[in-house]
Amino acid sequence: MCQREEDDRSVAYHPAMRAAIVAVGSELLGSTRAETNSLKLAALLRRYGVPVAAKSVAGDNEEEIAAQIAAVAARFPLVIVSGGLGPTADDLTREGVAAALGRGIERSRDLERQLERRFVRMGYVMPENNRRQADLVEGALPLDNPLGSAPGQRIEAGRCTLFLLPGVPSELVAMAEAQIEPWLRERAEGREIEQGCLKVACMAESVLDDRLAPFYAEYGTEAVTILASKGDLTLLVDVAGSAEERRSALDQRIERLRDLVGDSVYGCRVDDSLEAVVGEALVAARASVVTAESCTGGLVAQRLTRVPGSSAYFLGSFVAYSNALKSELLGVSPELIERTGAVSEEVAREMARGARRRLGGDYSVAVSGIAGPGGGTKTKPVGTVFLAIEGPAGLSEQRNLRLPGDRELVRWMASQFALDMIRRLLARRD
Amino acid sequence: MCQREEDDRSVAYHPAMRAAIVAVGSELLGSTRAETNSLKLAALLRRYGVPVAAKSVAGDNEEEIAAQIAAVAARFPLVIVSGGLGPTADDLTREGVAAALGRGIERSRDLERQLERRFVRMGYVMPENNRRQADLVEGALPLDNPLGSAPGQRIEAGRCTLFLLPGVPSELVAMAEAQIEPWLRERAEGREIEQGCLKVACMAESVLDDRLAPFYAEYGTEAVTILASKGDLTLLVDVAGSAEERRSALDQRIERLRDLVGDSVYGCRVDDSLEAVVGEALVAARASVVTAESCTGGLVAQRLTRVPGSSAYFLGSFVAYSNALKSELLGVSPELIERTGAVSEEVAREMARGARRRLGGDYSVAVSGIAGPGGGTKTKPVGTVFLAIEGPAGLSEQRNLRLPGDRELVRWMASQFALDMIRRLLARRD
Repeated sequence: MCQREEDDRSVAYHPAMRAAIVAVGSELLGSTRAETNSLKLAALLRRYGVPVAAKSVAGDNEEEIAAQIAAVAARFPLVIVSGGLGPTADDLTREGVAAALGRGIERSRDLERQLERRFVRMGYVMPENNRRQADLVEGALPLDNPLGSAPGQRIEAGRCTLFLLPGVPSELVAMAEAQIEPWLRERAEGREIEQGCLKVACMAESVLDDRLAPFYAEYGTEAVTILASKGDLTLLVDVAGSAEERRSALDQRIERLRDLVGDSVYGCRVDDSLEAVVGEALVAARASVVTAESCTGGLVAQRLTRVPGSSAYFLGSFVAYSNALKSELLGVSPELIERTGAVSEEVAREMARGARRRLGGDYSVAVSGIAGPGGGTKTKPVGTVFLAIEGPAGLSEQRNLRLPGDRELVRWMASQFALDMIRRLLARRD
Repeated sequence: MCQREEDDRSVAYHPAMRAAIVAVGSELLGSTRAETNSLKLAALLRRYGVPVAAKSVAGDNEEEIAAQIAAVAARFPLVIVSGGLGPTADDLTREGVAAALGRGIERSRDLERQLERRFVRMGYVMPENNRRQADLVEGALPLDNPLGSAPGQRIEAGRCTLFLLPGVPSELVAMAEAQIEPWLRERAEGREIEQGCLKVACMAESVLDDRLAPFYAEYGTEAVTILASKGDLTLLVDVAGSAEERRSALDQRIERLRDLVGDSVYGCRVDDSLEAVVGEALVAARASVVTAESCTGGLVAQRLTRVPGSSAYFLGSFVAYSNALKSELLGVSPELIERTGAVSEEVAREMARGARRRLGGDYSVAVSGIAGPGGGTKTKPVGTVFLAIEGPAGLSEQRNLRLPGDRELVRWMASQFALDMIRRLLARRD
């Protein structure tokens, strides 16, 4: 697991630079759409040691765009603006930036011709309003957009460099990688940073924090950043210094973290997901998996099959919500359900056994619980979840959980623990 | 469907007010967490006719908080600040706002005593740093927080009113409803707005836009707002005027929209979800449902069971990813799979039939398709999805889809169409 990919970890480092991000688009000021382009930009900037210090959203309004740009261009050396570069009348980023910097707008004949050629290639006549995309803020360098019609712009304005990028996420990311990354590398003057990552499943942030006390004592609390999501923690470690120093310092720190966190570490790439890691382990073991689900209602199966290529190891699943189906499909004895209730250790065990036998997988995981809001009792309150996993050698493990949170969180955490049990069982096989 | 709830629709109306929102918290400047408190605030403000004109995020840094607050307090009559009101050293909203307004900080003895009493009630001694939560920006009115220890503050600063609210979403929403809503109502001077909503499933935004042309011609394009999400559109209609005028104007407009959109309308409350509406229809019909899923891998079952109380109508599901299981579990004949491939109209039909017979539901919906990225062919490219639904009277409907997008979007849209087929079939039953 976790082969090092040299080129991915060593990047230029900017100990002093800070960035601001301005997103343009009225749709981002409503009640339905969160602004997320800045998350992708923050991830890219972070690799180069550049923190995002401020971000804001302006509607499609020239005056507001200008006010926000003027405010951040005066305070930060790097400003990235996303969106508002389209051809329609409400795409006003060019005008807003020009107003903020007290500059004019110039239409570039070169860009105009490029846009015309792009439309010809696609077999269209260019609509007249697309010519607006050839407008440059006075003094701006146009930036090629390989995926769309909106060119970007780079503008030097006193001590601030502004990048204007399109708002379509795929275009934004491609242009940030092609245009901002080289710019950052160039200005780093040889300073570099090495990055390491560990992904941790099913551990509370406070528990992780306690475990890391010796690491904090040795390297300082700033030496590791913890990003927390539901039942999923990401540890990031940055190391500066000469190439050799970085390498050995990073290895040392990652090793130390691994020792402290233990077998809850499931991956070492920022993009690793628990379901994909389980999939890789199943492929490596040439094994297949099935699920039997009650309170998760198919969530475990759905997460396993989110992974491209999952048909290589995922065979199928029973979602048995009613007691009758638990008996008919999974062979759980009605007497057992009568005696222990449908949510019990014994029923989870029978469900795992029944699914493995009837669906024919090497591994089988079963979930039965009370997700709420109703259905809780004094002895089995909402959040009570029983998990069982059976492998080629018979019943392998059980877990009885008492999960906090609402219906959605209980179901999610149950699926997270279920996937993690498969991962752990496969790891012990090695 | 859609009984009118009088009190919910008529709210005070501010034709000229605009708001800015500032969220405070370094965790919102990273690569993992989008800022979403502003979406909840935007929804509340929208009900009172107040648009959000700008929003921004500041880290836990006094200078940056002050810069952002100063910028918006000078431009907008209403500024809402969320977060940074906790007891720890990095909770700096109070200090930042004071600096922005050129005011001091005063510790309130009253608030201090309230905080002490709160801790005594919970059986704790108040930690010393919690006293910081009794600090008020000079001239501020403290706002009660019934759900947490961080009091809010309301500050009048020239032509701007600032509300400081805690960042915990549940506390923020409760306080916005208890403190900002009455403030908005009071200042509306009797002007009111009436709101209507329609929810639309599985229709492209451009198709809806075309259908609404007569409505636009009659009432103007501003008379309806369309919020688009994956396979799910929300239409919002606002009407001002006297009580009687509003009532009849709104009825007229909603009726007109219903006529134009047709039977793709599935709900009339902003909070309606397709899975909950399907659940309500199943309860009303005293009917049960089961699913047979291939490419969605349990997503349809998972969505049906997200709804509290779904055990009243959802019995269970087969996720049959492998061809062998399609035959064994669902009785799809191996010869048929051999002849048409596992992704075909005929196989979807057999899956629906098999699931209904073997799981015993009144209604059964089946999904088989190619979610990608691999597995596509010339005649069945990625995005090809076959749906079949069977009801008490036998096979009821089939749909053959060619969905755009990546694996995740194809699976989501397939589940959306599957749920909508159940809804439509139940509606025809009436």
